[in-house]
This record gives sequence, structure tokens and C-alpha cells, in this order.
Amino acid sequence: MEREELKERVCRAHHELKDRGLMIYTWGNVSMIDRESGEIAIKPSGIPCERLMPSDIVVVDMQGNVIEGKYKPSSDTPTHLVLYSAFAGANCIVHTHSTYATAWAQAGKALPCLGATHADCFCGSVPCTRAMSLREINGDYESETGNVIVETFASKRKDPTLMPAVLVACHGPFAWGADDEEAVYNAVVLEEIARMSHITMQINPQCAGAGRPLMERHFFRKHGKGAYYGQSEE
Amino acid sequence: MEREELKERVCRAHHELKDRGLMIYTWGNVSMIDRESGEIAIKPSGIPCERLMPSDIVVVDMQGNVIEGKYKPSSDTPTHLVLYSAFAGANCIVHTHSTYATAWAQAGKALPCLGATHADCFCGSVPCTRAMSLREINGDYESETGNVIVETFASKRKDPTLMPAVLVACHGPFAWGADDEEAVYNAVVLEEIARMSHITMQINPQCAGAGRPLMERHFFRKHGKGAYYGQSEE
Amino acid sequence: MEREELKERVCRAHHELKDRGLMIYTWGNVSMIDRESGEIAIKPSGIPCERLMPSDIVVVDMQGNVIEGKYKPSSDTPTHLVLYSAFAGANCIVHTHSTYATAWAQAGKALPCLGATHADCFCGSVPCTRAMSLREINGDYESETGNVIVETFASKRKDPTLMPAVLVACHGPFAWGADDEEAVYNAVVLEEIARMSHITMQINPQCAGAGRPLMERHFFRKHGKGAYYGQSEE
Amino acid sequence: MEREELKERVCRAHHELKDRGLMIYTWGNVSMIDRESGEIAIKPSGIPCERLMPSDIVVVDMQGNVIEGKYKPSSDTPTHLVLYSAFAGANCIVHTHSTYATAWAQAGKALPCLGATHADCFCGSVPCTRAMSLREINGDYESETGNVIVETFASKRKDPTLMPAVLVACHGPFAWGADDEEAVYNAVVLEEIARMSHITMQINPQCAGAGRPLMERHFFRKHGKGAYYGQSEE
Repeated sequence: MEREELKERVCRAHHELKDRGLMIYTWGNVSMIDRESGEIAIKPSGIPCERLMPSDIVVVDMQGNVIEGKYKPSSDTPTHLVLYSAFAGANCIVHTHSTYATAWAQAGKALPCLGATHADCFCGSVPCTRAMSLREINGDYESETGNVIVETFASKRKDPTLMPAVLVACHGPFAWGADDEEAVYNAVVLEEIARMSHITMQINPQCAGAGRPLMERHFFRKHGKGAYYGQSEE
Repeated sequence: MEREELKERVCRAHHELKDRGLMIYTWGNVSMIDRESGEIAIKPSGIPCERLMPSDIVVVDMQGNVIEGKYKPSSDTPTHLVLYSAFAGANCIVHTHSTYATAWAQAGKALPCLGATHADCFCGSVPCTRAMSLREINGDYESETGNVIVETFASKRKDPTLMPAVLVACHGPFAWGADDEEAVYNAVVLEEIARMSHITMQINPQCAGAGRPLMERHFFRKHGKGAYYGQSEE
Repeated sequence: MEREELKERVCRAHHELKDRGLMIYTWGNVSMIDRESGEIAIKPSGIPCERLMPSDIVVVDMQGNVIEGKYKPSSDTPTHLVLYSAFAGANCIVHTHSTYATAWAQAGKALPCLGATHADCFCGSVPCTRAMSLREINGDYESETGNVIVETFASKRKDPTLMPAVLVACHGPFAWGADDEEAVYNAVVLEEIARMSHITMQINPQCAGAGRPLMERHFFRKHGKGAYYGQSEE
Repeated sequence: MEREELKERVCRAHHELKDRGLMIYTWGNVSMIDRESGEIAIKPSGIPCERLMPSDIVVVDMQGNVIEGKYKPSSDTPTHLVLYSAFAGANCIVHTHSTYATAWAQAGKALPCLGATHADCFCGSVPCTRAMSLREINGDYESETGNVIVETFASKRKDPTLMPAVLVACHGPFAWGADDEEAVYNAVVLEEIARMSHITMQINPQCAGAGRPLMERHFFRKHGKGAYYGQSEE
């Protein structure tokens, strides 16, 4: 993908997140990678999403060196780099402080699968990372945030393709996808199911959840070889 | 009704649901039947409601065969077919993943009648279906979803004319009506009373509900022979 | 006031309530009285607020006889008549099904005064009526709704000038004021404090409330002879 | 700063708070001081924020004497004066009745730091003032409101630069900043974290909070000498 298109898509993703109520001011950041060139377009640090333009987007390489751009890249850039390195299928990463997903992250709880809305998009509970150690917090904090996400997926044997999101404890959600449209979509779904699950648990604190068969039926109706949802693209 | 009008009405219903905050992306679907011809217009699978056009709407017969349309019909089409077959008074069916109604469905709880807003539209508790069996989930899932709705109305002796909605456990709401305007209205009311009932139960967990006399007074003020609400249409 | 102005104001009040998120479809009704002529302008029954025009407004006398209008007046007209008769200072009445105020009404709970936002507008708890008897429900229900409001104010020794709203159990709120602007304002405040009080009680279920001195300080800062809030109108 | 610019900024701040959903009608007030001249521009009393114009803004001196303006200044002016006198770094003060911050204030609870969204802006729990005494309420109430805020910061050893907001018990939030943009921003963040914290505590009532190391890492990432967030302004 052309570098200009990469920057435009990253810019547009921020505006869509703002329009859908998931982002205000500088709360969050989106990046997108071109896997061939290894170039990553990412939000500049401290520039409000409300007035972001494609020319504001910074381009960095996989080591975080700035290739193009008048601004410093997002302070969360090291987190994105770790995720691009570990999750080969993720080509766009969306980090927000959206209200309900952040509340679950602050609560330190994985988001349980309570129904079809969740299962259509996420194959199982959305995991929440462990609390970070003093060494991690006071060290290279943003890289360590990426590391703790990767550790969570490894220890819980989660596949980032089947589970394209995570809650970082005391912080907020990260979502990703094969492209920008998918990553933004996953972030929006995550926020909505975080809200629905919260309300569901208040209505019925003993709610047992959707169960694996129903969960898998919905997920694989939309994903993988046996999918029959949507228009076949032959 | 002309096929073109059927398609336009189905398209418009999606946009109204979007405008009223009950639908985003591809979450839900509306269909409408012409009882004379037996033709059913329904949303295509996987096309976002935000950019749906009348020409995108698919027309199927009562067996689900596509009569007209460039797209595959909604994957939930078999559910709609079962309901049209069983509920003679339903000419339009609205399925959404609206937040509060879905939360009650995920909680597996019938929505109790706690006041006039509910009673003006629904005569009694809005039922919630039982959990589906492994056989139903792994079989013809979408038809079985319709079957479990019909079973719920039969076992609870609910009349789909007096109770034009249901909560499908772990999934979300379906509402219907004599026409598109009524079905959309019922879906909107359902979402709002789901929200109100949730808040009411939080304020007063011992809330006893509206009681049958008040509930029937409000319902029959608006429905049936003795209705005196609205403008008489003579 | 000219009859035409009365109708225009009643129409505009509906649109403002819609714009402020307190009214959708036909959920609620506003009326306004000219105390000199005894004429009351009120919403027609069953006409959605979204497309209400001044020419749709019905004019009735204090006995409910239609003086002018192509439509039947609101089915709640008898409730309004009882209130105009009992509450001399009320010249405009606003009935809504706004979400949080309705939830408190459904919960059957008076709305406690928990802070300045409430106290600036309502001098004490907003009362909730008792459950209506079978005789009242099956009799002249709408008049009895008015009667139970008047009874509530008498038994609790509430002055409708200092307490310009009530919650009707299992139904919803009524608010009033010296004119249309005041009545709409009181309905909007009621909805917002119903929301705030709900959240406050969730944060601190032992919350003791504002206390009479603070409550009276805020109320009388804005109302009565010693008021010093706002611009003096000399 | 020119007096006209001061008035324009104060006016614009009200409109931004309205647009961001933190202010309706006359609920709240913003002021801004020019530290050189000692002139303070503040909202007039009782004029709705929706139709506020720069020419409506009142200019007072540090003793509250009106220097310019056709209206009486906000009845909360004495509170602002006390804060400008005590908090040297505060050049703009924003008082709102925003829903969730007010709910915490009504609950009489400090707002705990539960995550990065809070820590990015506020270094520790946002304090809540004690209940006011009968003497304070019935005396010079608005000045005493300022005094109780200052007392709270002194007794809890809070630095108003590191903690640019407070909850006034049974009333609502005050936020401030070095300029209007910062003060409005802090008020918006306060409302959002009040909402997030409420939801977080409902999801996990045992939530232990962010912990001091993570809190300080986030706060000092953005504030003070070691800050590396945003674009360096050299």
C-alpha cells in the first residue's frame, strides 16, 4: 500500500472512532502497517483526534525510527510495535479509552461471552492482562504493555486472529484486524459488548453465559472455511 | 402491495432503526411479507444498514427461495419464515441487537411489566425463550430459533397479536406488527422499556410490577374494541 | 392570551421536549390554560410529537368540552383538568414518560433531594402517588389519576408552587409551572435529577441526602422574596 | 490579556461545555482571570448557557465589584474569588452540574484513581469536601463554599496544580487550569472518569485501583519536567 494511503486510512480511522463515540481529544491512537515495506503509520502524540489530518500522521519503521512526519509519534508506539511483531495477522491496531471497555479493564476482569453479539466477533472471553510489576511500570513502560499483552495471549492460548482484542488492566482496550475497517469494527463491537455485558450482569448476576456451542456456532457462521454469513466473495 | 414498495419499506425501516439508535453495521434485519403473493422482502446478509438501498433488498418466497435480488438474503431468513408461518398477524418482523433488550435476552429473563409505558404496547411480560439444545444449535440453527419462539408462545399461551415481541435467550429481541410502522414502533418501545425496567429494578429490587388491572387498562385503552385512545378511523 | 398563541406554545413545548430527549412518538402530552377565558390547549390523542403542528392542538373548556380542533384531545385530558382545578398556580402541565423519572415512578419511590441541582428547583422530595385501587383503575381512570395526585399533595402537605412535579406510581411524571417555559424546565430538571439520584444511590446506598438547611438555602436563593439568583426584573 | 478576549473566551467555554454535554440552561458557570490587571470575566446570573454572548459576560475585580457589564454576575462569584485568591496557578475556573461528577459529589465520596484515563490528568483521588455547617450554609454561603474547598486541599495536602478539580459535597464539581482550554478539558475528563469509575465499581466492587506507581507513571508522562507525552514546545 502507498504510504499516502496508509496515512489517510489511519487518519480516517480516528475520525470514525470519534464519530462513533469511542474517542475524544487525544485518548487513544490508531496505527496501520504495510507488511511489505514494514512501514507503520501512527497518530502523532498529543494531537487531538478532532482535528487530525493525513499530513499529521507519522510514519515509523519496525524499530520505531521516524521515517516521515513533522511530529513525534504516539507515546504508545512501542506497544504497537510489539504487537505487530508478535501478531502476524494484525495489520491495524486501535487503542481507545472507550467508556465501557475501559471500565472492564479498570475492573481487571475478562469480558465474558454472554451472547451472539459477542460471539459474532470474538471467539471466547476477551482476556484482561495481569497487573504490571513495578519494574515494568518504571522501565520501558509502553514496550512492557505490549509484552504483557503477548504474554496474556500465550499463557491463555488465545489466537489473536480468533480474539482480535485485549483489555489492558488499569488502562483500556486494544483491538486489531487484518485492515483498518476490521480493526475499527472490532473496537466498536468491543465497546458495545462491554456495555451489554455490564447491564446483563446487573440484571442477572448468576448469568452463566452463552456456552461454547452457541458461541462457536455464531463465531464460525461468520469466520473461517464454513462461514455462510455475508456475501461470498468469489 | 407492489414488490417495489415492499422493498422500499424494508429499506426505510432499517434506516429508521439506525436513526433511533437500535441498529449499527449489520446487527439485525427487517423483513416484510405481502400475504397475497407470499413474497417476502428481507435485508441482504452482511450489508451494513448505514448504506442500505431499496435495490439491495432481497425478495424470497415462503420456502426461502430467492425470487429477486443480487445478494444472498439474511442468514436469519429461516427464523423469519417460521414466524410468518406461525403468526398470521405478523406482516413485518424486526430483529435487532438493541442494547437493553439484548441485555435482558442475554440475562435469560422475561421482561416484567412495571408500568404504563410497557402496558401501552405489550399485554404482559415479554417472554424469553429457553436455552437451545445442542442439537438445535448444531442443526438448522436459524429455523430452530424460529421454532423455539413459536414453542415459547404456545407453552406460555401468549397471543402474538397481544404480545408482538420476544427475547431470544443469549441472542436478542424480535418484534413484529401488522405493518412496518407497527413493527418498528414495537422494537423501539421494547428497547426503551428494557432500559426503564432495568433502572426500575435497580432503584427498587422488590418492585412488584404494575399489576394486571392497571396493565390491562392501559393495553386495552389502545387496543381492541373498547379502545378510546387516538383518533377513531371511521 | 390569544388562543392562537396558546396553541403555538403548547405545540412548541412538545418539540422542545422531543429535542431535549424527554419525548418520543405519543409518549406524553402538554397543555396550557388561559386562566381568564378558562380555555385549555392540549395535545391531540395519538398524534406523534415529532410532527405536531399548532393547528393540530385541541382547545377544551374546564369541563373537557372541545371548543376548537379537528382531533380528539389527549386521553389524559381529565388528569390535566383535575390539576388545573386544584392547583391555581399551574398554568401549564407537562406529562412525559422520560426514562429516569418514569423508572422512579415505576419503582414507587419518592425522589429524595440529594443535592443542589434538585434543591434549586424542587423544595423537598418529589412525591410518588400511592397505587391506585381497582375501583379507580376500572372507573374514570384518568380523572382518578388527577385525584390521586391532589390527594398526595394534601396528605403530604406539599405546596404545588414549591413542588411543581409528581411521580404517578407505575406510570410516569407530571410537572407544571406558571407558564410553558417553567413547566418544560421543571420536567427537564426532574428527568436529570432522577438520573443523578439513581447514580448517587448506586455509588453510596447510605447517602443521607442534602439536609433541610442546604436544600432550603438553594431553593430560596432562586424562589420567593429573598431570592438573589438571576437578574432582578424591576 | 485584553478584556474583550477574556469575555470571548469565557463565553466560548460555556458553549463548548454545552456542546460536550456538561452544561444545560444555567447549570454552572465559567470565569477567567487576567492576573496582571486582576480583572475576572464571569457568567451573568440566570442567563442560559445556550444563548450566551460575549457582551453578556460580566467583569468584576478581586473584591467582586462589577467593572463592566449589563448584568449581575453569577451568584457563585464569591466561590470563584476565593479560589483565585488561594490557587495561584488557576486562571480559569469551570463549575458544572455534569451528571456523573455531580453524582459522586452528592454521594459525598472522593473519586478514586482506577486507571490511566484518570491518572493522565489527576494525580490521585479527586477530593470531596466535607458537609458544610449550618453557620456556613446560612452565612455567606458562596464564599464559604470556596473556603471549604481551600480547607480540603490544605488538610489533604493536595496541590491544586497536580489536582485541578474538586467535588463539593451535595453540590457538584469545580475544575480549573492555567487557561480556559485546560480548565474545560479538566472538567470534561472529570465527568468521564466519574462515569468510568462508577461503572468499574459496579463490575468489580473490590477493585483496588490503579496503584501509586502506575498512577504516577501516567501523570508524569504528561506533566512536569520528565514529561515525554505530546509535542515538545521548544
